[in-house]
Amino acid sequence: MTDLDRVLADLVIANRILAHEDVVDAYGHVSVRHPADPKRFFLARSLAPSMVGREDIMQFDLEGRPLEGDARQPYLERFIHAAVYEARPEVLAVVHAHAEAVLPFGISGAPLRPVIHSGSFMGEQVPVWDIRDKFGDTNLLVTSMPQGRDLALRLGTHNVSLMRGHGFVAAARSLIEVVRMSVYVPRNARVQMAALQLGAVKALSPGEIAARNAGYKPQSPETQRAWEYWATRAGCGELLKKA
Amino acid sequence: MTDLDRVLADLVIANRILAHEDVVDAYGHVSVRHPADPKRFFLARSLAPSMVGREDIMQFDLEGRPLEGDARQPYLERFIHAAVYEARPEVLAVVHAHAEAVLPFGISGAPLRPVIHSGSFMGEQVPVWDIRDKFGDTNLLVTSMPQGRDLALRLGTHNVSLMRGHGFVAAARSLIEVVRMSVYVPRNARVQMAALQLGAVKALSPGEIAARNAGYKPQSPETQRAWEYWATRAGCGELLKKA
Amino acid sequence: MTDLDRVLADLVIANRILAHEDVVDAYGHVSVRHPADPKRFFLARSLAPSMVGREDIMQFDLEGRPLEGDARQPYLERFIHAAVYEARPEVLAVVHAHAEAVLPFGISGAPLRPVIHSGSFMGEQVPVWDIRDKFGDTNLLVTSMPQGRDLALRLGTHNVSLMRGHGFVAAARSLIEVVRMSVYVPRNARVQMAALQLGAVKALSPGEIAARNAGYKPQSPETQRAWEYWATRAGCGELLKKA
Amino acid sequence: MTDLDRVLADLVIANRILAHEDVVDAYGHVSVRHPADPKRFFLARSLAPSMVGREDIMQFDLEGRPLEGDARQPYLERFIHAAVYEARPEVLAVVHAHAEAVLPFGISGAPLRPVIHSGSFMGEQVPVWDIRDKFGDTNLLVTSMPQGRDLALRLGTHNVSLMRGHGFVAAARSLIEVVRMSVYVPRNARVQMAALQLGAVKALSPGEIAARNAGYKPQSPETQRAWEYWATRAGCGELLKKA
Repeated sequence: MTDLDRVLADLVIANRILAHEDVVDAYGHVSVRHPADPKRFFLARSLAPSMVGREDIMQFDLEGRPLEGDARQPYLERFIHAAVYEARPEVLAVVHAHAEAVLPFGISGAPLRPVIHSGSFMGEQVPVWDIRDKFGDTNLLVTSMPQGRDLALRLGTHNVSLMRGHGFVAAARSLIEVVRMSVYVPRNARVQMAALQLGAVKALSPGEIAARNAGYKPQSPETQRAWEYWATRAGCGELLKKA
Repeated sequence: MTDLDRVLADLVIANRILAHEDVVDAYGHVSVRHPADPKRFFLARSLAPSMVGREDIMQFDLEGRPLEGDARQPYLERFIHAAVYEARPEVLAVVHAHAEAVLPFGISGAPLRPVIHSGSFMGEQVPVWDIRDKFGDTNLLVTSMPQGRDLALRLGTHNVSLMRGHGFVAAARSLIEVVRMSVYVPRNARVQMAALQLGAVKALSPGEIAARNAGYKPQSPETQRAWEYWATRAGCGELLKKA
Repeated sequence: MTDLDRVLADLVIANRILAHEDVVDAYGHVSVRHPADPKRFFLARSLAPSMVGREDIMQFDLEGRPLEGDARQPYLERFIHAAVYEARPEVLAVVHAHAEAVLPFGISGAPLRPVIHSGSFMGEQVPVWDIRDKFGDTNLLVTSMPQGRDLALRLGTHNVSLMRGHGFVAAARSLIEVVRMSVYVPRNARVQMAALQLGAVKALSPGEIAARNAGYKPQSPETQRAWEYWATRAGCGELLKKA
Repeated sequence: MTDLDRVLADLVIANRILAHEDVVDAYGHVSVRHPADPKRFFLARSLAPSMVGREDIMQFDLEGRPLEGDARQPYLERFIHAAVYEARPEVLAVVHAHAEAVLPFGISGAPLRPVIHSGSFMGEQVPVWDIRDKFGDTNLLVTSMPQGRDLALRLGTHNVSLMRGHGFVAAARSLIEVVRMSVYVPRNARVQMAALQLGAVKALSPGEIAARNAGYKPQSPETQRAWEYWATRAGCGELLKKA
């Protein structure tokens, strides 16, 4: 299996995990940067992530244009991915999703903050991007590079940005990390939501967030353990094999 | 497959999706107007939607009377469908259900409003109909044309009306659209509910709702993607085929 | 199939439904009065309801004593059933369970009330019984006839009584009705809980509750539809057959 | 089957139950003290509990060091188990997990307290340990004996301690008891959370907690009923057999 084969197999796994863990439904998507060409990224054609296979993956440039004459229907919102890869050279994987538990934090004044250790990877602050600020009344979808770039600007150097009335975007240094964030950010949101009903909430400290981030390695046994677990649950454990 | 065959296959799919996505249980139903005769509509006999097959579908006139001498037991509340089709010529599909998440909005003063993009199709306002206002103490079921017409009057030109202490009715220009609303209106309700605990809620603007509505097409790849996804999850993906 | 065979098959179905619909887990139980001898009732031996088969059913007298020399281990709390049958000749079926959603109403001052039509069968009022009032500090279980009788006294002529810090008891004129209450009372509790966060709650009126109760028939198509649906979901649809 | 075989089979069952009942996911673990040597305990290698088999179980001493030259990757947080066994000779089984429902109580001022009978085994008080109090900014994981001992000190003679921003540790006299606590403590947390929204909450009294604790026997039919039920649901019922 070549490096590229491994990356594409992992992208299929990521699609299936996000579907099985209820981060995406028919909508939402995950992409990965081309390992050999930072000006390209991989993203499925317009298809529910639970149904994505290797053959459904397309290549795009950093303007969101399909490559190699691929005429299949792409996701309307591929510009989210393109713009984040363009703005953030260190980012290797991106998720856009509408996980229900994070949505309340995008439409109220309450900031989403890491309050549990597994939520630490969202970072100290999670900005909220409102497409209406710059583009007025739209259908809320990010369907052009200017919209994608405006979102990437709001994301800045953060790992996650909420999108008002719509969902979130998450960016990370690996597919495993972006999937992990996408699974645990909603859990953190549910816990924060409940804790706010109970009283003052003790969030993770900046030092704790930094300590967790410093120690993170995509290839650590702890990280791989979760990837293997989620893939197995999602019914695609066989794709883990390094054939 | 004729147009009528397609419509009936889609009605079976709609039943199964609504059951699988927890919009209906043993109760609740979905109908579609006859594609060639606007004075008729199709609705299953009295049966849980998860168990409905093509052979269970009956035809009714716009007074809720079974056609073609069909003597099977119909749903008691078929008058909801009849009255909405009677009042709204542009409506081609109707759902009545008791999805849990919308019920709190029908019994408290808080109005249900679109706060997430996928909830936009409920429209700017969602009226609440209370059967008690006109009919006094009943068993809350809509079991006659006068009751159905009163509900249709409250629905007016809206897409969704809540029914106090009971459920909701949704009306749309296609089966796919009414199913989509029925899946996402409860999600919107849960998000709105949670956001209200967090503080002031930023709803979709009238312009955003209009922009989303203007761009909606039942045959768009995005819409079909969800239909295919939900049907597959519900175990009736084979009914999607245009045999 | 004799009447008795039918009753016992239905009792197995009731066990499976309550387990599948998350009303009971390893704990909680359902009983039915002997159709020919009102001084006896049927209840499974000490076993999780999901695992109960016809062969696990025991007979008890109205003091909770096993009949016919049956030496198998009975449920500790069989006295709940015995005492309710003793006090209420019209009651033919009893459920005791710990469904999570009703528990908050048993430990706070807020009364559980019917706010949705499917919750109407709990009746206008749902008393809360506290074993501590009469028996002081116990393990909260109803393990004797005096305790069962005290609970039955608090239940009075109501259909449901909460048990503080423990669960509820429901009594009805048929197995189908007691199962239906046990499924929908928790749903009503969740809806009421949410609605209370939204503002003043409009409950069902006494007239509505009476209208629904007056119209209820265990053999109606609407009631049978739910029974068939739940049994099928619980994987025991074949027990519905009148062999 | 020897005693040791039985203990190890039960440890596999405990892993599977905790995974199936949503107490653990890829993270969290359960251990049991060696029945013949109180200075040793059994705990799986670094693996998601849903995937643990007999062959994955390792032995550790009370400093958290693998025994018998076992060079497989252990859990980073094995020191939680080691320190609790060291401090509490009567404890025979330990769980560490991040069950979502208990997390809000670890980050807000509200104390978790037993409010339902099945939650009684957490005891009257549940302390909250904050790793930051003594160790400052860390990644929140318990990765050394000093950290484990500090947690064990906070646990004291209690059965459960919350860990701020992280999870909980539960200690008991048997595997069955620690699993039962780990399943019902989250349920108690959800019920308490909801009841707090409804008004003043009536908790179990100290006398009730004592009465329940006094009557608890791991081999009672009621306890075994739950173990059998959970194991069957988790798909490992065959491991219950005393072969």
